[in-house]
Amino acid sequence: MKHIDLNCDMGESFGAYTIGMDTEVMNHITSANIACGFHAGDPLVMDKTVKLAQQKKVGIGAHPGYPDLLGFGRRHMACLETEIQQYVIYQVGGLQGFCRAYGAKMQHVKPHGALYLDAVENDTVARGVADGILAVDPDLLFVALAGKKGETMRRMGAQTGLKVVYEAFPDRAYTPEGTLVSRKHPGAVISDPDEVARRALDMANGYVIAIDGTRIDLEVHSLCVHGDNPAAVDLVKNIRQTLEASGIRVIPMGETSP
Amino acid sequence: MKHIDLNCDMGESFGAYTIGMDTEVMNHITSANIACGFHAGDPLVMDKTVKLAQQKKVGIGAHPGYPDLLGFGRRHMACLETEIQQYVIYQVGGLQGFCRAYGAKMQHVKPHGALYLDAVENDTVARGVADGILAVDPDLLFVALAGKKGETMRRMGAQTGLKVVYEAFPDRAYTPEGTLVSRKHPGAVISDPDEVARRALDMANGYVIAIDGTRIDLEVHSLCVHGDNPAAVDLVKNIRQTLEASGIRVIPMGETSP
Amino acid sequence: MKHIDLNCDMGESFGAYTIGMDTEVMNHITSANIACGFHAGDPLVMDKTVKLAQQKKVGIGAHPGYPDLLGFGRRHMACLETEIQQYVIYQVGGLQGFCRAYGAKMQHVKPHGALYLDAVENDTVARGVADGILAVDPDLLFVALAGKKGETMRRMGAQTGLKVVYEAFPDRAYTPEGTLVSRKHPGAVISDPDEVARRALDMANGYVIAIDGTRIDLEVHSLCVHGDNPAAVDLVKNIRQTLEASGIRVIPMGETSP
Amino acid sequence: MKHIDLNCDMGESFGAYTIGMDTEVMNHITSANIACGFHAGDPLVMDKTVKLAQQKKVGIGAHPGYPDLLGFGRRHMACLETEIQQYVIYQVGGLQGFCRAYGAKMQHVKPHGALYLDAVENDTVARGVADGILAVDPDLLFVALAGKKGETMRRMGAQTGLKVVYEAFPDRAYTPEGTLVSRKHPGAVISDPDEVARRALDMANGYVIAIDGTRIDLEVHSLCVHGDNPAAVDLVKNIRQTLEASGIRVIPMGETSP
Repeated sequence: MKHIDLNCDMGESFGAYTIGMDTEVMNHITSANIACGFHAGDPLVMDKTVKLAQQKKVGIGAHPGYPDLLGFGRRHMACLETEIQQYVIYQVGGLQGFCRAYGAKMQHVKPHGALYLDAVENDTVARGVADGILAVDPDLLFVALAGKKGETMRRMGAQTGLKVVYEAFPDRAYTPEGTLVSRKHPGAVISDPDEVARRALDMANGYVIAIDGTRIDLEVHSLCVHGDNPAAVDLVKNIRQTLEASGIRVIPMGETSP
Repeated sequence: MKHIDLNCDMGESFGAYTIGMDTEVMNHITSANIACGFHAGDPLVMDKTVKLAQQKKVGIGAHPGYPDLLGFGRRHMACLETEIQQYVIYQVGGLQGFCRAYGAKMQHVKPHGALYLDAVENDTVARGVADGILAVDPDLLFVALAGKKGETMRRMGAQTGLKVVYEAFPDRAYTPEGTLVSRKHPGAVISDPDEVARRALDMANGYVIAIDGTRIDLEVHSLCVHGDNPAAVDLVKNIRQTLEASGIRVIPMGETSP
Repeated sequence: MKHIDLNCDMGESFGAYTIGMDTEVMNHITSANIACGFHAGDPLVMDKTVKLAQQKKVGIGAHPGYPDLLGFGRRHMACLETEIQQYVIYQVGGLQGFCRAYGAKMQHVKPHGALYLDAVENDTVARGVADGILAVDPDLLFVALAGKKGETMRRMGAQTGLKVVYEAFPDRAYTPEGTLVSRKHPGAVISDPDEVARRALDMANGYVIAIDGTRIDLEVHSLCVHGDNPAAVDLVKNIRQTLEASGIRVIPMGETSP
Repeated sequence: MKHIDLNCDMGESFGAYTIGMDTEVMNHITSANIACGFHAGDPLVMDKTVKLAQQKKVGIGAHPGYPDLLGFGRRHMACLETEIQQYVIYQVGGLQGFCRAYGAKMQHVKPHGALYLDAVENDTVARGVADGILAVDPDLLFVALAGKKGETMRRMGAQTGLKVVYEAFPDRAYTPEGTLVSRKHPGAVISDPDEVARRALDMANGYVIAIDGTRIDLEVHSLCVHGDNPAAVDLVKNIRQTLEASGIRVIPMGETSP
């Protein structure tokens, strides 16, 4: 029986500020990427989010980012490899504190925003992230981009010795080469819920229909979904139902990791 | 054979900014209280400081503070007990990341600055700190103020289930009641190196000469020393030599913890 | 013809985080207290908010707070008078930059959250705030608490040489002594929109009905309203309509300042 | 009679952290670039530094940087032009607050670290900085890199309508094309005090000897010097004495601005 994981960014609130509908989304996903206080999140939010994930049996992951709360971690920063490594160690360690407080085991790490994009483009960034993860706990899964574009990031993770989880984006168009269509192009983001759910199912079955209609193979272990607004929550629910109705088991990446 | 620990605040540099002569001081102390990024310290500094402590066989401790880099954690902030607990979990967790990176075991936690002073004065603050420590690792030692004034802080630590280490300040005058003389009073801080070393020896022997000349009992497991400038480093060296010349073993608190 | 000002906290968003319905509320108020980047707000938000206020002919004010984004400036911090003064200078100066960019004149300053509450309780805090305002521009109005409780804060402003604007809270119950009923007591916050609007009208007429039914005099120049959610916006609209329907002119404090 | 300005970064301390020997250096320079709280500096430091510059009749300038205290503003951040503009408005405004507090007139703005380097390389960054300055005060001088490499930065300043001051680095080697030799190459930084002073004199006379021995023309209004350590302070003193002994007037850029 086939299976897939649904991962979502969680715990992005900060102090008096709220982002995301974590309580609702946590009912539908299987892995939570929890912000660790650099680009979003704070100790109270981390505590609450780890507790909630633990209750809902959702796999707990760290979501480290650049030290840029003002830019929500979405801006490239020219950090050295060693800086990246140590920023990751600190953030993963911080979240480990809350895992230990709840007797939970951390499952994975996925870099956030510009740190993720830089890890896709740049092998020293990818290695910095992977080395940081390894230093804290070699059993942590490293979530990296599926498809051709993600090869560098995944190779760095694998070379470091980490188990690498391939993730894809059901709401994003793919080129015939298996890379994401840039957000600058029309049609890059797919908003029709049924279309997104159908693409999620394709991905769980190992392929995706590219923007030119070609069917291309895509090895995928986890699907990245969003939970920022009510429509997004409905979308996640719809994806999950579609997958399960088609006989795909939706389970945390840690239960089936490569 | 008697023994005592020498603890010192370490890793208080931040980015381009340097505070402390860590490399020199680390040769003379037995326990390092390492700042965790809230009031001082950053991931690179934490990494470097944990590594150095590990090399020098100095006991590694977390030194969590209020989230006030601008005030160096020296200003009281009206935080809730739960906020304090979670700030401690995050900071201790962050430092744990670096301990794990170097295969080191964290030995203790000592709150910093205003958080320490508030824990002395206020049982909810003390409990917040102790609960935070316990949540991450119940084997961590809780460093609290020796003497009458420290009773609340120590009781909260003990009630939580932590082992409590009593610390005293050889360069500070004590009242006949066994509390620190306020810094506002003349003679509160003792600067003569030989006097400080002699007081350190008294403390290792279980007593201190109060400001009025009375000899009072004081149970002490660790002496807090400073490493901000060359004179301070000489002072630490002098304290250690005086103790060892008098047959006191100077060893990390973790090797002899109560 | 009588007149009153309606002031509201604005510009409290930060980076990717949104608080407040500024665009809607700005249609109904006459003075905006704009966060300056310490407890909330950032340069982009300040720019946008000053521009919006300028367009809507709403009086522009600085809303300085403690340097505590994590606590949204709601936590007391033990700052020295000189620190408070200089934090105010910096924040008011920062907002002045945007006023100058839009050719706008800053009208007033009102401290935020815990800084406001501390200024009410403590004359050194009040003096720090007032001295900071005076240093940047002696023509700025100082918004302080109306009623008996606000005497210290207002006296410090007046002694400094600033014009002081008295503000009251139509959605808060008052004691017969003319002080706010603590939020801990039932009935402290009034939520019925018509009741709040009626109280706003009473205040514009120079009195308030205390929680025990007594009518007490209250000199008020400005009413503090809120804009956090759709119900709050409706409340503001209702207050304004009630005031204007009763022949009270609702105009910026700067046009009628004492 | 020829003249030149000596500018130096000042006010880079933060909270308990000290960088720079401001009190000493301020005796020898004619223009101070004062950090504004983003990459360095805080309100207390800004206050103290503006006051000191005012006392010593040193021209006061803002030294805005990227919002990266952890990286001391030395790391490139991918900010939008509008973000840069508004970060500059806020920081210049903040420093204006202290100028007003001391009745001082701000003279110039010079971007710091990576923001300066990005403005040299990238016209949208240079325009963002220049537009930010213009928005606050069109009389402020814009300090930009002299020589061929600085053409873009200077053109953006001039197009905006600002008066542009050309600065050169007497302790840095220049290529025959009039650009700075990269720090990665040997000989890029000149440390011999007499050599640096002689180069400062050449620059005041409108030329520099390039690394290959060629004499090239270089239009220069201000020389950038450093004040981080005792040797640097001696160097500044030496530069000033050499210039004055050769009949060059050393005066603030604002007194002679182009």
